[in-house]
Amino acid sequence: PTSSQVSSVVAANSLKTDMAPLFAQEVERSRKFLALMMDAGVVVPVPKDPGGGYTHEQHKQNYTAIYQGGQLYKLTGEQKYADYVRDVLLAYAEIYPTLGEHPARKDSQGSGRLFWQVLNDAMWMVDSIQGYEAIRDSLSEVDRKNIDDNLFRKAAEFLSTGSAVTFSKIHNHATWATAGVGMTGYVLGEKELVDIALLGLDKNGETGFLRQSELLFSPDGYYTEGPYYQRFALKPFVVFAGAIENNDPARKIFEHRDGILLKALRTTIQLTYDGYFFPFNDAIRDKSLKTDELYHGVAVAYSKTRDPGLLSIAQWQGRTVLTDAGKLVANDLAAGKAKPFPFQSMLLSDGREGDQGAVAVLRNGDSTSGQALIAKNSSQGMGHGHFDKLSWQYYDNGHEIVSDYGAARFLNIEAKHGGRYLPENETWGKQTIAHNTLVVDGKSHFDGDAEAADKLAPEQLHFSDKAGSQISTAKMTGAYPGVDFTRTLALLELDGLNHPLVADVMRVNGQGSHQYDMPLHYNGHIMRVGFDLKSNVESRPVLGSDNGYQHIWVDATANPESADKAFVTWINDDRFYTSRWIPQAGSEAILAESGANDPEFNLRREQMIVQRVKAAGGSVFASVLEAHGRYDGAAERTTDSDSQIKSIQHTRDGDVDLLLIETLTGEKSVLAISYDQDETKKHNAMINGTKVNWTGFADHIRLGGGSQ
Amino acid sequence: PTSSQVSSVVAANSLKTDMAPLFAQEVERSRKFLALMMDAGVVVPVPKDPGGGYTHEQHKQNYTAIYQGGQLYKLTGEQKYADYVRDVLLAYAEIYPTLGEHPARKDSQGSGRLFWQVLNDAMWMVDSIQGYEAIRDSLSEVDRKNIDDNLFRKAAEFLSTGSAVTFSKIHNHATWATAGVGMTGYVLGEKELVDIALLGLDKNGETGFLRQSELLFSPDGYYTEGPYYQRFALKPFVVFAGAIENNDPARKIFEHRDGILLKALRTTIQLTYDGYFFPFNDAIRDKSLKTDELYHGVAVAYSKTRDPGLLSIAQWQGRTVLTDAGKLVANDLAAGKAKPFPFQSMLLSDGREGDQGAVAVLRNGDSTSGQALIAKNSSQGMGHGHFDKLSWQYYDNGHEIVSDYGAARFLNIEAKHGGRYLPENETWGKQTIAHNTLVVDGKSHFDGDAEAADKLAPEQLHFSDKAGSQISTAKMTGAYPGVDFTRTLALLELDGLNHPLVADVMRVNGQGSHQYDMPLHYNGHIMRVGFDLKSNVESRPVLGSDNGYQHIWVDATANPESADKAFVTWINDDRFYTSRWIPQAGSEAILAESGANDPEFNLRREQMIVQRVKAAGGSVFASVLEAHGRYDGAAERTTDSDSQIKSIQHTRDGDVDLLLIETLTGEKSVLAISYDQDETKKHNAMINGTKVNWTGFADHIRLGGGSQ
Ligand SMILES: [Zn+2]
Ligand SMILES: [Zn+2]
Repeated sequence: PTSSQVSSVVAANSLKTDMAPLFAQEVERSRKFLALMMDAGVVVPVPKDPGGGYTHEQHKQNYTAIYQGGQLYKLTGEQKYADYVRDVLLAYAEIYPTLGEHPARKDSQGSGRLFWQVLNDAMWMVDSIQGYEAIRDSLSEVDRKNIDDNLFRKAAEFLSTGSAVTFSKIHNHATWATAGVGMTGYVLGEKELVDIALLGLDKNGETGFLRQSELLFSPDGYYTEGPYYQRFALKPFVVFAGAIENNDPARKIFEHRDGILLKALRTTIQLTYDGYFFPFNDAIRDKSLKTDELYHGVAVAYSKTRDPGLLSIAQWQGRTVLTDAGKLVANDLAAGKAKPFPFQSMLLSDGREGDQGAVAVLRNGDSTSGQALIAKNSSQGMGHGHFDKLSWQYYDNGHEIVSDYGAARFLNIEAKHGGRYLPENETWGKQTIAHNTLVVDGKSHFDGDAEAADKLAPEQLHFSDKAGSQISTAKMTGAYPGVDFTRTLALLELDGLNHPLVADVMRVNGQGSHQYDMPLHYNGHIMRVGFDLKSNVESRPVLGSDNGYQHIWVDATANPESADKAFVTWINDDRFYTSRWIPQAGSEAILAESGANDPEFNLRREQMIVQRVKAAGGSVFASVLEAHGRYDGAAERTTDSDSQIKSIQHTRDGDVDLLLIETLTGEKSVLAISYDQDETKKHNAMINGTKVNWTGFADHIRLGGGSQ
Repeated sequence: PTSSQVSSVVAANSLKTDMAPLFAQEVERSRKFLALMMDAGVVVPVPKDPGGGYTHEQHKQNYTAIYQGGQLYKLTGEQKYADYVRDVLLAYAEIYPTLGEHPARKDSQGSGRLFWQVLNDAMWMVDSIQGYEAIRDSLSEVDRKNIDDNLFRKAAEFLSTGSAVTFSKIHNHATWATAGVGMTGYVLGEKELVDIALLGLDKNGETGFLRQSELLFSPDGYYTEGPYYQRFALKPFVVFAGAIENNDPARKIFEHRDGILLKALRTTIQLTYDGYFFPFNDAIRDKSLKTDELYHGVAVAYSKTRDPGLLSIAQWQGRTVLTDAGKLVANDLAAGKAKPFPFQSMLLSDGREGDQGAVAVLRNGDSTSGQALIAKNSSQGMGHGHFDKLSWQYYDNGHEIVSDYGAARFLNIEAKHGGRYLPENETWGKQTIAHNTLVVDGKSHFDGDAEAADKLAPEQLHFSDKAGSQISTAKMTGAYPGVDFTRTLALLELDGLNHPLVADVMRVNGQGSHQYDMPLHYNGHIMRVGFDLKSNVESRPVLGSDNGYQHIWVDATANPESADKAFVTWINDDRFYTSRWIPQAGSEAILAESGANDPEFNLRREQMIVQRVKAAGGSVFASVLEAHGRYDGAAERTTDSDSQIKSIQHTRDGDVDLLLIETLTGEKSVLAISYDQDETKKHNAMINGTKVNWTGFADHIRLGGGSQ
């Protein structure tokens, strides 16, 4: 080795011994990745392929290499990294001015230069400008000017004035674009670029990054498209905010709007179970906190707040970033400063004013094996929203028990419609019947009209996180003409039961005759059905012809007559679950599976129970979901594989709804709902000869009586 | 505390500091369990319930408490454990003489006294006598005599002469019985009981424990019922052998029949992937090495052999036993002596002489993320055997990719036929179409006659574990009148492919017209189908009316015309798999799912591809299974999601079968099978204008030609 190689090895080694394990591992990972990229040489192909294709993937690899190469140069001083990043950027500077619309664009307006959509160009820019910043001072003036002028200035121009419609949106695509343009402004010393990034092309603040941070998150830091897109939207916010803080600290960007950016980061983490995002709306289900956006987000947030809960998130991620913030995270983690992240029950309002409904999260125990009930009472959430008003999901014991399908999409898998959303995302994923909420007359909410849906949000009427009696109530008006519905979901602790119980009271107010369907999508294998089935064993019919019904195979139908019998028990992992409901007169139960009319096998096949009622006027769906028992395969021991609930009864007393639950051991309790938002007002009502008293909108009253 | 309490706490603490973590944890676990049991007091109910019911579970808990209480007394000297075990045994001594046939018995012959089947009584005895041995010296003479005479002597009598048919079987039920009776003989000093246990009721050695160890395992230590029962059968062998070694070392029981018992233990471990048993025959799929039998087996084997590979198994188990052997395992593990267990390719002959077929295991990489191909060429394996001659299974990347259904049973779950085998175990689990092997004229092997099946085994013709070219060939004659079939399964490494490839050539010799069905049961979600489908999207028909076909929903049918198009690609976790075959003239492909005619939801719904050929005479099924690419959800990056194989061709040249495989990069290689068992003989043959040479039965010849 030459002496300069030796000294750089020595420098690297001494650096390494200074580094905490998590950071050292990132450096090592990046070194390996750069070694591979450098081995392959500079490869900057003429753009040609759509998402998942060769040129698409190569340009993605390149911007990662530009970013990481720049950071490695900054950390190690090793010239080879600066040289490689320079050479790649020079190759881009050569090609960039020659590029027009992308050949695989979907439409002219959204076309990128390097990628099929302008969003990817913006992502390229956010990473690349950071890599360039790290090596720019080391360049010759000629190279610097070449890259400044022919690449970044041109790209900034394209992403701003050249893509004015996208740039001026209040939408995460615009956040990526403004972040890329603004950071380029700082690096090139072009105040104009910073100004239009922050304040919009007209510099009047009606669009641009600052406005986006005001309009895209609710006061609780909730992003209206849902957790999957919240994660995605977060990176440009956090990274650009970091750059603003460095270059323009007087702006106090992290204090803007009551610290909204850090709040949004924490909310993003709260919207997970076992590290995976609640998959409502157009979500890819395998997305967890282990993504680049959140590595950046956690590092930046930790460097601003020193909240030890964030360290445990970094630990779960097993990753950090190559910045000073990442180094701090790794050091403090190694110093044992981590504390559990405080996952908790919370009401996250939706809408910039917080008045467009909410997502209610009711938790018990930790976020890995405990319970999480999500009441999806938020607004439609724009184009990626689903027709799922007042739907819910439930997690327990590390698994999703009551499920949301998420998006019908195989991201970046060419064979599946080029990795784009599948047609089944429209015909199934978004439809109401694919969710755990009310379907009227076989039609989706708002008759499947997204524009109409965006205009009306549910109203969150009540939220209580009182331990053992957590309750959320919301009301939806306008999803169906002449029919509104109000749902109370509660996470209750009952004496004598080992696990919390979910209670669900859905009151439907309607005029005229309607068919009401209430689906429950669950994960597990059926153990026991409490009622007699008419099974379709030799040929399996389809439930309907549109609005998602065309995708449902009917396994069996039934007419359960009482709550004693109206239950289905299934097993998931080592725990049993029983859903029990009060069958309304003449109601039907349909046991079914998705996957009909799916000739390309685009759908996962999942199970559901549908309660179907034909009623003149309104209706009430009352049910409980119970976790019970244990199956221990290793020890060959099974306990309490059957339901521990003896009965449930529902009564309407005046305006009040009462749900009486009795366990096998005789413990009785009542979920009482007054629907009266005066939380100080006292109420009482009768059920089954017993008088119950409570205060406020709703409560859970334990009546005792158990034999244990 | 009294001074004696204090001294026992001190003793326990000093004991604890001496203990390696794994052992300390077992002691702690047992202390907690005993504390719970002692809290509940002595509970010895009159037997009433079948498996999974209350009295069944209570008696199981009791024998565990007797065993562990005894060991804790031995380890700690704490009198409370001896007292509790004594009191429980006294309660049994009171009740036992009054018991007749069990009210929940299936038939008189198999009835236990404490449990619904005599097997469980034997298991009770194996644990209980060990617990009793540990405390017996501490008892008053009155108590000792009472327990000796009224419990163990009576129980030994019931399990031996009182259950003569079971006791005299060559079957694992008899092993449990002989182990219980023999160990009781040692403890009570009754040579007669030891003698009949070792040599059978007639003491002529035609039955009994020694004979069982000779007849139940093949020379390679394979147990004919398969891995699930092998695991189960092992415990009484290992535990009783330990007792024989202690009481009668001159017998050199561990050297008996060339060390068959320890060989059987190692073979049991080899029959796993990622710690889970290959689920062929009547296997419960969630059974892993984490079971009581294997905790005992590993400890005893380690104490005899000091094989450091066994320590890594104990580490994976995270458990050991409360004996001296367990203590040794924990100590040596803590001392860092563990080495990886040498999972390897192996041929495990079946039958006491090793001439009843074999299980061929072809491995690459480790047993957690590597490949394992299992060719199930063993004999029927008695009543728990399946009609699955020459079937196969494949594991890769931590998952079962080509699957075996295992048993249709939910062990100990009362709601599912009392936890017994379900009717669907007969109608689906055992049937040939539920496996990955040839079905002729829609009938299972031996027409589903278990008795006939037990008389004929496959013949293992060839086995090679040559690195990169592992090959197994076996032939089955007699499963169908007039039709025999010979199958070669190979695990091949091809230049330019990242993962090994499975090649499969099934040659069918037949007379007259037949329908040949070749199912492939796979796990994953279909990504791409290479041929046009006629899909059953609106109503799903059933494939047939019996022999398992009644359980198959037909999703689609097709007539793929060439190997270019005859493929299906699916995704499992983050890897893609393509099964590609050479469609025979006029053949049909059926894409299907199990679950038809299953009104009680007893079956898991799983997918399959069936190749169907109607032929006059014989046929050849040639196919490859390829793992390729990667789906990285976190990084949103997908590579090689489509097959990396360009073509496959099959030629019959004289008696020789040749399968030519060409990759997308142009690499060619040939799997050549001469079917000539002279392994020194040279062969050559032509395929596609190319001459290939090899020596022996079969080989994989790389022809090069790749562009990379
Ligand atoms: Zn949804
Ligand atoms: Zn099987």
